[in-house]
Amino acid sequence: MTATASGRNDTLWTLARRAERMNPSIIREILKVTERPGILSLAGGLPSPDSFPIDAMREASVKVLQTAGREALQYAASEGYAPLREWVAAHLGAQGMRVDASQVLITTGSQQGLDLCAKVLIDSGSRVLVETPTYLGALQAFAPYEAEVDAVPSDDDGPLPEALAGLAQGARFFYLLPNFQNPSGRSMSAARRAALVAEARRLGLPLLEDNPYGDLWFDAPSPPALASHHPEGVIYLGSFSKVLAPGLRLGYVVAPPALYPKLLQAKQAADLHTPVFNQRVVHEVIRDGFLDQHVPQIRARYKANRDAMRAALERHMPAGCRWNTPTGGMFFWMDLPEDLDAMAMLPMAVEAGVAYVPGAAFYARDPQPNTLRLSFVTLSPEQIATAVEKLAAVVRAAVDAQR
Amino acid sequence: MTATASGRNDTLWTLARRAERMNPSIIREILKVTERPGILSLAGGLPSPDSFPIDAMREASVKVLQTAGREALQYAASEGYAPLREWVAAHLGAQGMRVDASQVLITTGSQQGLDLCAKVLIDSGSRVLVETPTYLGALQAFAPYEAEVDAVPSDDDGPLPEALAGLAQGARFFYLLPNFQNPSGRSMSAARRAALVAEARRLGLPLLEDNPYGDLWFDAPSPPALASHHPEGVIYLGSFSKVLAPGLRLGYVVAPPALYPKLLQAKQAADLHTPVFNQRVVHEVIRDGFLDQHVPQIRARYKANRDAMRAALERHMPAGCRWNTPTGGMFFWMDLPEDLDAMAMLPMAVEAGVAYVPGAAFYARDPQPNTLRLSFVTLSPEQIATAVEKLAAVVRAAVDAQR
Repeated sequence: MTATASGRNDTLWTLARRAERMNPSIIREILKVTERPGILSLAGGLPSPDSFPIDAMREASVKVLQTAGREALQYAASEGYAPLREWVAAHLGAQGMRVDASQVLITTGSQQGLDLCAKVLIDSGSRVLVETPTYLGALQAFAPYEAEVDAVPSDDDGPLPEALAGLAQGARFFYLLPNFQNPSGRSMSAARRAALVAEARRLGLPLLEDNPYGDLWFDAPSPPALASHHPEGVIYLGSFSKVLAPGLRLGYVVAPPALYPKLLQAKQAADLHTPVFNQRVVHEVIRDGFLDQHVPQIRARYKANRDAMRAALERHMPAGCRWNTPTGGMFFWMDLPEDLDAMAMLPMAVEAGVAYVPGAAFYARDPQPNTLRLSFVTLSPEQIATAVEKLAAVVRAAVDAQR
Repeated sequence: MTATASGRNDTLWTLARRAERMNPSIIREILKVTERPGILSLAGGLPSPDSFPIDAMREASVKVLQTAGREALQYAASEGYAPLREWVAAHLGAQGMRVDASQVLITTGSQQGLDLCAKVLIDSGSRVLVETPTYLGALQAFAPYEAEVDAVPSDDDGPLPEALAGLAQGARFFYLLPNFQNPSGRSMSAARRAALVAEARRLGLPLLEDNPYGDLWFDAPSPPALASHHPEGVIYLGSFSKVLAPGLRLGYVVAPPALYPKLLQAKQAADLHTPVFNQRVVHEVIRDGFLDQHVPQIRARYKANRDAMRAALERHMPAGCRWNTPTGGMFFWMDLPEDLDAMAMLPMAVEAGVAYVPGAAFYARDPQPNTLRLSFVTLSPEQIATAVEKLAAVVRAAVDAQR
């Protein structure tokens, strides 16, 4: 049967088969509910707006328009603004990656990087590997290309290298988020990274490494990127959303030279180029070391929030709940007692004035209904304490109701 | 055979079949050549930077960051900034379309609108109809979805309605650019529009209407949009690139309500949302009628340029050349004598210090090698006169060489 759009004109428009794979983002649907006044939301992965460099952005916007207004408002190269590409290459180089600016493709947020990689690498029915759990936005980017997504088993240290041999055959790539993963908050140790890369290399399995949160470490920098171990076998995605501001939609792909031309052609077809005004403004903000001062402030802020959430969880959550303690990033991941369903519990939480994202949304297969994701970056420490206390009361009530 | 990326690691990365359909944009490749100093380029469809409202952009950027910096830099709704969506609905309403703001999806340039429509409507092997010739960027957007593209025959008034019956069967949509078409410069008369819409409606053929240049009329407004005749059967694409500035990458899709949710889901997967900073700045610029003053200035500028190009063509081009006289927009379209090949002639033109785009790039099938596109909006009238004189000398030399 051919899919058609719903509504009166259901014989006029024939939808592509892939449209059946598209679904509304559960997170965005939940966010709509939780944006009601009076809800303390731990749901969104929204960076704290207190961290946005509004003054620096204003000064840079004025300077760019005064000194290069014509260029900033004109069509521009699909590859991105050359000085920004060079900045990215140098920035990653300082972290141990060997990157030439010619490998950097500026994207409209790193979500576009996921879309372009999927467009270039996934055929209908292609197998793709992801973590357990994995980033929902990646599942949404891969789905329209009709990928068959398999989940790689993991422990608290990340995906299990020994699980790859049974899954790698014919897989187009393995998508990983090694630092402070969304949603689980976990990070891969240096040893796990080395073992995963070695096994992927042995199996001829390409890797797609997503690193939006890597700079948001609290106590010590993260181990080197997967791409630093195996540059020709890894596509690396980065973002300015978490260290500057997401509303600019500015990210980047670092691609092996053999792949770059096709990603560039896909980029041209997708939106010609990322807004060059945004690229020049961000470059103006960061060119003289601004992030060296700015990012430590974000780290300190988020670490205090993390501490507030950990203390509140320890103080209020009933027995049978389990959570990690993230060493960076934006998220706690919590297991409720096994017979609870975080999705079913959400309306009660919203009624009590607190919101979260049920963990089931983050599984490619076999969702764990008793999991949930808690963001600690949008609210203040005081609000976090209150929100966790409210949530704990909801959990206790749900546990009692199960008895 | 499975496609692989070129280079040393050609067994590691397996490309999607669709990647074979992707090609570098010939226009972007030509632009690279013609950006050399000393070349008078009639190639690019680049709006005159003299028309960019740099001061208004600067003031609006400052105001947005001062009054709503946190919102302008945060994640935002995938649908777009609500006041901008309302502005679009009202703007189109004033031109005779019935549009509710809920039908407006803000996109990262109208190129993204083409990509999203293709993503939602084209399966591998789906037939899609385009004009003869047609916009190259649309062909590039459709190709990765493995469309089979058929060209509808046309005359100087646009596509022939009587040609549709033999082509419509099974076609997912017919892509049209009714006003000052890129590349041909032609516009469809009101009678042709009515006849095309009536025939498409009779055949159950959906339309994809692209209107980036509609506001750039010189003497009289264009006839009403196709979508105003048949709103439930037409997706309409608009853009701020030609009336404000392309470097902002801001466009929009107006979709029938039955289709909107799938386009929105495709948008979420593609880049979450269009930069909300850009959306708020543009809304701040245009909210109080700025375009009512600004667009007439662009029209006057481009009309003077059009007149300069027409005069130069009449004065310098040898017998056997034929061109239209566009009544708006940005392009002349020229037929050279039949035995000339505009692609083969391009290196000679660049050698002589002038550039254009060979017309062959704009045909889905059966390219006409003796055609070329001349933009009249990037250079000044004096430069246009010089460029056309140089080009005419190249044409005469090519004609002589054929004898």
